[in-house]
Amino acid sequence: MIQFQCDYSEGAHPRILERLVETNFEQTPGYGEDIYCRKAAGLIRNVCGAPDADVHFLVGGTQTNFTVISSILRPYQGVLCADTGHINVHETGAVEHGGHKVLALPSENGKLSAETARNAMIAHMEEDGPEHTVQPGMIYISFSTELGTVYTLAELEALAAVCREYDIPLFIDGARMGYGLASEGCDVTIKDIARLADVFYIGGTKQGALFGEAVVITNDSLKKDFRYFIKQNGGMLAKGRLLGIQFLALFEDGLYFSLSEHAVSLAHKLRAALKAKGYAFLVESPGNQQFPILGNELVKALSSEFGFSVWKNVDESHTAVRFCTSWATTPDAVDKLIEALP
Amino acid sequence: MIQFQCDYSEGAHPRILERLVETNFEQTPGYGEDIYCRKAAGLIRNVCGAPDADVHFLVGGTQTNFTVISSILRPYQGVLCADTGHINVHETGAVEHGGHKVLALPSENGKLSAETARNAMIAHMEEDGPEHTVQPGMIYISFSTELGTVYTLAELEALAAVCREYDIPLFIDGARMGYGLASEGCDVTIKDIARLADVFYIGGTKQGALFGEAVVITNDSLKKDFRYFIKQNGGMLAKGRLLGIQFLALFEDGLYFSLSEHAVSLAHKLRAALKAKGYAFLVESPGNQQFPILGNELVKALSSEFGFSVWKNVDESHTAVRFCTSWATTPDAVDKLIEALP
Amino acid sequence: MIQFQCDYSEGAHPRILERLVETNFEQTPGYGEDIYCRKAAGLIRNVCGAPDADVHFLVGGTQTNFTVISSILRPYQGVLCADTGHINVHETGAVEHGGHKVLALPSENGKLSAETARNAMIAHMEEDGPEHTVQPGMIYISFSTELGTVYTLAELEALAAVCREYDIPLFIDGARMGYGLASEGCDVTIKDIARLADVFYIGGTKQGALFGEAVVITNDSLKKDFRYFIKQNGGMLAKGRLLGIQFLALFEDGLYFSLSEHAVSLAHKLRAALKAKGYAFLVESPGNQQFPILGNELVKALSSEFGFSVWKNVDESHTAVRFCTSWATTPDAVDKLIEALP
Amino acid sequence: MIQFQCDYSEGAHPRILERLVETNFEQTPGYGEDIYCRKAAGLIRNVCGAPDADVHFLVGGTQTNFTVISSILRPYQGVLCADTGHINVHETGAVEHGGHKVLALPSENGKLSAETARNAMIAHMEEDGPEHTVQPGMIYISFSTELGTVYTLAELEALAAVCREYDIPLFIDGARMGYGLASEGCDVTIKDIARLADVFYIGGTKQGALFGEAVVITNDSLKKDFRYFIKQNGGMLAKGRLLGIQFLALFEDGLYFSLSEHAVSLAHKLRAALKAKGYAFLVESPGNQQFPILGNELVKALSSEFGFSVWKNVDESHTAVRFCTSWATTPDAVDKLIEALP
Repeated sequence: MIQFQCDYSEGAHPRILERLVETNFEQTPGYGEDIYCRKAAGLIRNVCGAPDADVHFLVGGTQTNFTVISSILRPYQGVLCADTGHINVHETGAVEHGGHKVLALPSENGKLSAETARNAMIAHMEEDGPEHTVQPGMIYISFSTELGTVYTLAELEALAAVCREYDIPLFIDGARMGYGLASEGCDVTIKDIARLADVFYIGGTKQGALFGEAVVITNDSLKKDFRYFIKQNGGMLAKGRLLGIQFLALFEDGLYFSLSEHAVSLAHKLRAALKAKGYAFLVESPGNQQFPILGNELVKALSSEFGFSVWKNVDESHTAVRFCTSWATTPDAVDKLIEALP
Repeated sequence: MIQFQCDYSEGAHPRILERLVETNFEQTPGYGEDIYCRKAAGLIRNVCGAPDADVHFLVGGTQTNFTVISSILRPYQGVLCADTGHINVHETGAVEHGGHKVLALPSENGKLSAETARNAMIAHMEEDGPEHTVQPGMIYISFSTELGTVYTLAELEALAAVCREYDIPLFIDGARMGYGLASEGCDVTIKDIARLADVFYIGGTKQGALFGEAVVITNDSLKKDFRYFIKQNGGMLAKGRLLGIQFLALFEDGLYFSLSEHAVSLAHKLRAALKAKGYAFLVESPGNQQFPILGNELVKALSSEFGFSVWKNVDESHTAVRFCTSWATTPDAVDKLIEALP
Repeated sequence: MIQFQCDYSEGAHPRILERLVETNFEQTPGYGEDIYCRKAAGLIRNVCGAPDADVHFLVGGTQTNFTVISSILRPYQGVLCADTGHINVHETGAVEHGGHKVLALPSENGKLSAETARNAMIAHMEEDGPEHTVQPGMIYISFSTELGTVYTLAELEALAAVCREYDIPLFIDGARMGYGLASEGCDVTIKDIARLADVFYIGGTKQGALFGEAVVITNDSLKKDFRYFIKQNGGMLAKGRLLGIQFLALFEDGLYFSLSEHAVSLAHKLRAALKAKGYAFLVESPGNQQFPILGNELVKALSSEFGFSVWKNVDESHTAVRFCTSWATTPDAVDKLIEALP
Repeated sequence: MIQFQCDYSEGAHPRILERLVETNFEQTPGYGEDIYCRKAAGLIRNVCGAPDADVHFLVGGTQTNFTVISSILRPYQGVLCADTGHINVHETGAVEHGGHKVLALPSENGKLSAETARNAMIAHMEEDGPEHTVQPGMIYISFSTELGTVYTLAELEALAAVCREYDIPLFIDGARMGYGLASEGCDVTIKDIARLADVFYIGGTKQGALFGEAVVITNDSLKKDFRYFIKQNGGMLAKGRLLGIQFLALFEDGLYFSLSEHAVSLAHKLRAALKAKGYAFLVESPGNQQFPILGNELVKALSSEFGFSVWKNVDESHTAVRFCTSWATTPDAVDKLIEALP
């Protein structure tokens, strides 16, 4: 079985494992206060062009989302979010468990528009008795989104402008940030993200690490006591250096970016081959996820040899599926898949 | 600098790293639904003599504590706990963040007695208007405790009897279970723990793994929907197999127990040497933590070469310190420490 | 200024005030354990045909909603609800503050259909990895709804059937239950509500009391320890008898129902007069709320003399408004309003 | 049966009922935005010498405590409190339900000393890794305390100084503030309380109202969006004017203070008579609660005619009891009690 199911089927890039082995018997302080975390934080500040940012390492995406959101909102505030957003649909209500409403808004291709967000702010303020409703206290978006799309720089600037206008922070979930940045036509850089977001994270789990998400806080007012939040929310790894070592390996010479490009280029190769064979697509996708439309019998036949997601019935005899490439996908695997498609 | 500071200064036992490297490019389903987690769960059920137990793998101790407690208590219930208990003093109020009061009770040497627990149950029920106070809904203890002591089998049986009498579960935090079981004079086996607790966990983080805690649920009524709790509380690792692989390595041939014995035997060696040199101790400690009383100048002198915890001022010129051995401590390190003590 | 703004502009029915004055210097136990609460509970059990129901008195609607919901759901569960539901839009996220997601579903005229609810249950169970999403744990509806509409008996039966099928409770918010029951064409009785709901409440605040909501729990499995929930959520009034005395006055000789009929009949009188004068309506409303469409200049003119809600722009020159009658509305007030409408 | 059980056995002072009757058919806006609430707030600001304070009216004490605390603390912070404090022992963990640890400290006669509070602040800051423990974020005290004692002005000044020193707010629970202010030897005025506290409340429920607590916020930084907190926590009464009307009656001509003095003077009368008859007391109590020590048979005999609390066994044959007077206690009732004591 060859997997195109998701981007966390394998372990980690071998260089990361090597580093873990090399450093295994070093004795370091716990809880992220070691030299590796400090070095990795420095590299990330540098690559983000954010010399004053605070950088913290957490274990997983859901944990990072509810920890960051918990650190920002007052109890009566909620988080504006695309209705397709991960925090709204795939985290078992973790944000609500922490006491906050996810204010889900209509979205297009997984993206929340500045206009929609602004209208939500205005609608709240125009309420007759706004205290009877949840006050929007921040905006959450994903880069890239759940549907593999990416915001343009203009779209991000517009969202950031709404945030500045209403004095609320912009939080960018970057669980797949690398794949987003490497996507076709992407005009956003990681420095743009650091400049426009008040807080964001760079995902490791889906981008070549065993696990780990690097939170970058650029807005000074959000920095205070963040380690308390990490600890209280179960994100403070005892052997915190495991996170530092992994991000060091990802960022010391650009591995994070080259792995992302690897995944995206293989996705594009697959896309080109599918187009050449005459297949249609559900959406035009610029990144590491492709959504071709296949005949139902082909779907069945393929699934004995390949892992992928059945996405959506298109008509009685056709189905859109998702093929996802990753840092670990081999050219050979893609060739085999192409070959198997008539 | 040689560390006797804690039991999580190093990475993992080399066999664990080997396994991670060997399996690195295998493709498995995420979220703990892989073959390694299944195998490790089977081994744990077996070693615990609990063929019907549910076994789940989480990342860290604080996370495991608040997740398990959240799965047991109703909103108006609290958790009975020694006042020295980890959830009461060292988890940044994570249990309260989840909505529950920690009902801290007086303890001796870190241990909660059955009598104290029973009295708390009675006191609540005898309240005139019990609904004005928090209802005790479970008992939490640690094995071994924060102070390195271990419950006797009789003490555990007595606590379990209180739980049965009042129909509340007994939850045992086993972050250092191995060191406890290997302690001098311990008459408790892991099968006893599985028999007496309704839910407990076997710590990996402090016992030779990179990270990871294995939750074992023996009480059927606590099993339902536990995976929802793991996910909601941020404990569901995307690459869940990392946990399965580690616990497989720890339990397939007794590594978990031999590493624990290794740590305890080195602690005993140190204790014997200290006694022979005439040092007094703060408490008689049976496990991997030793609390000798040293002159203040010696403490200062030692600290340039050795890492350890300053525990308590005994008098103007003497201080009790803690030396902690672990699965990774070398005989050579202990010899050097002994040598350095006049 | 004559108010048609809402149904809580005045104090209480005079008979209620008389009773409070009469009993003022009696000495009774606090917290709802007095003879008046017991008597009122008995009357309510009787009128509901629910001899085994538990009856509790709380102070306000939002408080009652989050207290009941908190008593039902496990932490990873959410409440199915019409997107227009009060808990979703007008309670400042109180349910989320208590840790639970409101699972808002599309509705028609404020009503949630059984089919929509069933589909939500099925969709959750068909998730690939349901533990990544919030589990629906109950259904919440209002009778009458936020829009003044009422469920038919068949609709309630169908919703209750979904609840039985999936073993989740049906909770009916009856803040305006009396007005609903008195609505034109309503084929539901309070006994039907008691038979079909697992828990519901009978609103006092909007129905002639100073304040107070009577929670009726018919499902045995929801009765345990409910007083703890009331206390923890701030709903346990020290002088609890104030609630018992009020509900006693409302239910000892049918005052609750006659006040409701009074309000609805005046609304119908207004409706008839408006129709006779040729006004159109936004919706056909059977109860104490009427939504006529008026010219914008008329809206402006009326608002100097009458209080009412501007509901919705219909076109450039017309607006739908809401006139709300209550137990306290006088025939004279309605006549004056009719007169003022050209 | 004559009640000395508590101070909420009766309804309200007749003048309050009169006002509710007089205003009953007035139509006012809901939710505390009416003229009566505004007037009452003005009177309270005046009597407190706090022209810039925000004043809000809530329904009950537990609700007020958790609402205020929720508005102050960040998620990782807790509230310093005497171990006997109401929030620690008699509110069913409502503060913890809201996510915060009550940091209970040793107290004497119900009072928390400035030294104890300061030491707790220091201890937290000196932690090696303070983020592993709950950060104290405010101080909560009661005036008068659960045991009927009152802080001296010097004690309050000292507590306020600790708060200023560590930049945390002082919150004073004044459920029985009037009785405290009227206590023998009390050198504190309500203006002192307003000057020293950052937020406090003036209790109505136990002091002559049907219900109601007036929250006074003097610290500007705590004022923002407080109405959201009231609503979210279920404290926003629909017919909010009921609260305004009551506090207006209590404060327009000093009724609040004269009722308090009435209760305390009757308690002193009782105390003098008991002393004259040779009874000993558990503690010297300056206010409306007296704790004489009676023979067990007398306790039994009295309880057929009088309601009171059995407080504590003193020895095998003697028991301390609590007699509580209130605004509603009659001189006749006290005379009868004195007579019944041999």
